[in-house]
Amino acid sequence: MSLILSALENIPLIRQGDNLADIVLNAFEQMNVALLDNDIFVLAQKIVSKAEGRIINLADVIPSQEAIELAEKTEKDARLVELMLQESNEVVRYRKNVIVVEHKLGFICANAGIDHSNVLGDGDNKDVVLLLPENPDNSAKQIRDEIKKRTNKNIGVMIIDSHGRAWRNGTVGMCIGLSGIPALIDERGWKDLFGYTLQATIVGVADELAAATSLVMGQAAEGTPVVHARGFPYPLGEGSLQELIRPKDMDMFR
Amino acid sequence: MSLILSALENIPLIRQGDNLADIVLNAFEQMNVALLDNDIFVLAQKIVSKAEGRIINLADVIPSQEAIELAEKTEKDARLVELMLQESNEVVRYRKNVIVVEHKLGFICANAGIDHSNVLGDGDNKDVVLLLPENPDNSAKQIRDEIKKRTNKNIGVMIIDSHGRAWRNGTVGMCIGLSGIPALIDERGWKDLFGYTLQATIVGVADELAAATSLVMGQAAEGTPVVHARGFPYPLGEGSLQELIRPKDMDMFR
Repeated sequence: MSLILSALENIPLIRQGDNLADIVLNAFEQMNVALLDNDIFVLAQKIVSKAEGRIINLADVIPSQEAIELAEKTEKDARLVELMLQESNEVVRYRKNVIVVEHKLGFICANAGIDHSNVLGDGDNKDVVLLLPENPDNSAKQIRDEIKKRTNKNIGVMIIDSHGRAWRNGTVGMCIGLSGIPALIDERGWKDLFGYTLQATIVGVADELAAATSLVMGQAAEGTPVVHARGFPYPLGEGSLQELIRPKDMDMFR
Repeated sequence: MSLILSALENIPLIRQGDNLADIVLNAFEQMNVALLDNDIFVLAQKIVSKAEGRIINLADVIPSQEAIELAEKTEKDARLVELMLQESNEVVRYRKNVIVVEHKLGFICANAGIDHSNVLGDGDNKDVVLLLPENPDNSAKQIRDEIKKRTNKNIGVMIIDSHGRAWRNGTVGMCIGLSGIPALIDERGWKDLFGYTLQATIVGVADELAAATSLVMGQAAEGTPVVHARGFPYPLGEGSLQELIRPKDMDMFR
């Protein structure tokens, strides 16, 4: 069994209002491969945010007193910190240059996922930033529904971002929204090779696929923000971002 | 560009003393695909531990007082807890049924990576457990060197395990040893699509590949503990497990 992850070439620069289903299908058609049931398209958060117009000019942001104080402690731009606070439920940790929050979407991430790079094509313009999509599960569902309508194929769609982690160096791709893909596979009660019952194995398959596709996308100038995945080894089914988030009271590391 | 991850069929049950390079190459030959430079073999920790004889019968373990006390607090077998303590530098958190440690190898994981399942083929014999390999980077290097000697191909070898994570539900595959593969790619200073300099992007490419291959291996009865990866998008080069571990004093979540 093989899992094949292919970066789509020919994804144009995305602008507010662009139809991502259209753009993904056009780029996929140029690969001269038939779309099949159970295929998955994985999109970088950045292009979804851009299409949804989640661009903010820092010149328009007036920082609160709380933002000004946290900006001083972390040596960050107070307007940027204001956006981080607006995008978050709470600040979990901070130190110089890093603010780790519980994002409004529920997950823990640095800087509320607000991104400077690859925003507008205006060089080192640090005044333009990109917020995460407002409802990435819904963004994924809209793209999936439209692809299904146009192709009659039952596919999955996932939106990913790169997150830092506790304990380990290096960012890895994480799922921040999905439609038509299971988030977790609960193998408790399954038997292993020898009939021994697995005790505690709930597998984060959506995050595993997110990491896999992030590797293929690259981070910097590659310009390949969409990956086609074939061979996902579980049946497609409904999943949601919320399943991937450990409730605060179950988290020993909050 | 595609990344192709293929589970090798025909990996036999592994026993102490087995030559894993031999077994991997034999299984790969049955796929009728030529081995190429830059291909990577990813092995589940379990088969490496078995080949290296890291099997312990709990009947042979005498728990210390510390283990007995921690076992009471966590409702675990004191002999198993004794092994966890022996395999760890320190206990980081614990509660009922879970002990999170800094493993002697440096990373944070639950239960010191000690595993009950898929050990000996003796059904639900809970008295036999498997420790992690003593030096997984070295295990990977030995397998890699022998494959190189026999094929004259410059490949990479990685050993992975499934780890739980802070903040998110579900285990994901993580690298616990590697040879010939970069652990991290430092993109700081790279320019993005628009010439904006990336600030803080060090990518955990080894862990991304670990997660990807874990997805293909499955967890339970599939019996596919080796994955062949083609199309890893970075040049092969030396990496080590230590690079992936965030030093304690740099970790806001210890």
